[in-house]
Amino acid sequence: MTLDMPGAGVFDVVVLSEPFDLIALFGASAAPFVRLLRPEEVTDPEAIRYALCWCPSDEAFAAFPNIELAMSIAAGVDSIVSCPSLPQGATVARVRDDDQAHLMAGFAVWNVIHHHRRMGDMQRNHAAGLWDRSFTPRPPRETTVGVLGFGLMGRACAEAIAAAGFTVVVARHRDGAPVAGIEQVCGPEAVDQVAARADILVNVLPLTESTRDILDARLFALMPKGAVLVQMGRGEHMIEEDLLAALDSGQISAASLDVFRQEPLPEGHPFWTHPAVVLTPHKASVSTRAETIRQLVENCEAISAGAPAPGAVDRSAGY
Amino acid sequence: MTLDMPGAGVFDVVVLSEPFDLIALFGASAAPFVRLLRPEEVTDPEAIRYALCWCPSDEAFAAFPNIELAMSIAAGVDSIVSCPSLPQGATVARVRDDDQAHLMAGFAVWNVIHHHRRMGDMQRNHAAGLWDRSFTPRPPRETTVGVLGFGLMGRACAEAIAAAGFTVVVARHRDGAPVAGIEQVCGPEAVDQVAARADILVNVLPLTESTRDILDARLFALMPKGAVLVQMGRGEHMIEEDLLAALDSGQISAASLDVFRQEPLPEGHPFWTHPAVVLTPHKASVSTRAETIRQLVENCEAISAGAPAPGAVDRSAGY
Repeated sequence: MTLDMPGAGVFDVVVLSEPFDLIALFGASAAPFVRLLRPEEVTDPEAIRYALCWCPSDEAFAAFPNIELAMSIAAGVDSIVSCPSLPQGATVARVRDDDQAHLMAGFAVWNVIHHHRRMGDMQRNHAAGLWDRSFTPRPPRETTVGVLGFGLMGRACAEAIAAAGFTVVVARHRDGAPVAGIEQVCGPEAVDQVAARADILVNVLPLTESTRDILDARLFALMPKGAVLVQMGRGEHMIEEDLLAALDSGQISAASLDVFRQEPLPEGHPFWTHPAVVLTPHKASVSTRAETIRQLVENCEAISAGAPAPGAVDRSAGY
Repeated sequence: MTLDMPGAGVFDVVVLSEPFDLIALFGASAAPFVRLLRPEEVTDPEAIRYALCWCPSDEAFAAFPNIELAMSIAAGVDSIVSCPSLPQGATVARVRDDDQAHLMAGFAVWNVIHHHRRMGDMQRNHAAGLWDRSFTPRPPRETTVGVLGFGLMGRACAEAIAAAGFTVVVARHRDGAPVAGIEQVCGPEAVDQVAARADILVNVLPLTESTRDILDARLFALMPKGAVLVQMGRGEHMIEEDLLAALDSGQISAASLDVFRQEPLPEGHPFWTHPAVVLTPHKASVSTRAETIRQLVENCEAISAGAPAPGAVDRSAGY
């Protein structure tokens, strides 16, 4: 990738992350466009206006009172908007990466088809040397896939699933323009309404106070008996015990899980060995490092010019 | 499904298939629209004008000199047009089933993403209890997926793969209208040109004299080193020994194989246990029985009215 930013200045950006070493992750991509600094490397904390963040500690921003931009390394900003030390006036921005959305979409489609076509059974038959043609799938259009969330990620997922012939219905918070081949349900009841119709339910909601714990026993009970869950949002969207109970009762017949309340998923967690679970290690998508840095620079430039940051989220909505 | 054919008469149709018992497969869907007859049940063979076929024996049509329609139970007609006893003037027809095309498309996408995202490795890590996030996929648009064939099946596959963000280039025999997001290459060199650019090559060509054995050592050598093959056409498209050699040299890094020269794939065939092969038992798609019968009736009605059969293929082209 070529960074086409001839006029870009060098911005000093502090990295604030509890779990990750963002310098190790992004340092090579950053030069010469931004200078990434660990908090302990900053000599004049009051001069720092920009931060690159992922799960900052509660007090991460306390030493940097003049932060104007807190940029997430990914699409999610939940750990930033909820950080108690985040300066009140700071802009929170996210990465908006079409490549990442397409990775997400491909991951969603793989999982939807994996369940719809019982590809896991085919793989087991292959391993056992069995030529078994007995399973006949339903036509995709007779299978309703519900998608929770219709931002950059949700839309990419919905479009890719629709292109494979499924009936797609999405739940979105805010009203929006129609999209061919995709039914949209808006408003506060949208999640319930979509779940009630979904043979396969794909979660790509942002994590906010109103979506935390949304995948719970109540929602699972609304779904058609034997429905499938594809959970690609945030671990905090789901009550894990409720999913286990729904799987064991057969209310949910199978689940693909990419995100968890605790990551890495602890050894011995029942999801690891549950026969109805397809488990992946938070790999539905990644933003590319070069693109994250490119967008970081873009947001720094906008802020320094007094313009709106292109990646800015609505802090009060939380996404 | 409701068959909305109030005026349909009852047609006598002989079933001609060496491997399958078509009465067992389709009998329940046929009544009251057609009467399916085994050859030995036909009392007046010269009165029979319609046949439902799948891999008829060489002499299958010999007893039925007045056959006007030979309808395949699926999209492929190769075993019918090449049958030496097929009456010269008979119309050969195929099923054109959008549901089937979507099943095909979903199967293609699952396999493309399975390789692109190394989902097999993720499944093995899951089974081993490993939380391994080390693999970073390329953005889909930087991965070129070549699709061989652009009929009903090829187009559905290409569109579904493109919707997941991949760069898609298709090889087609006849020129045609542009389709957004899909590059088309036409003409006699199209297959070579597409293969030469394909990181992942999906075969959904019809089987004809000019496509038989097309997936061979020569073609594999044209492909980028380490490319992936997704073979969903016909077993006779591929020289199986050539693929094994290409897999063992690393020229082809992995293959998804759904069709084989001999089906069921014989016990002990090296594909069963090759670590780079994803093997499925000719299950990329199925046409629904009710839809096949509906289209059979439609074609019988057209023929009996002296009109062109809607499912007719070009016998000389072979598809």
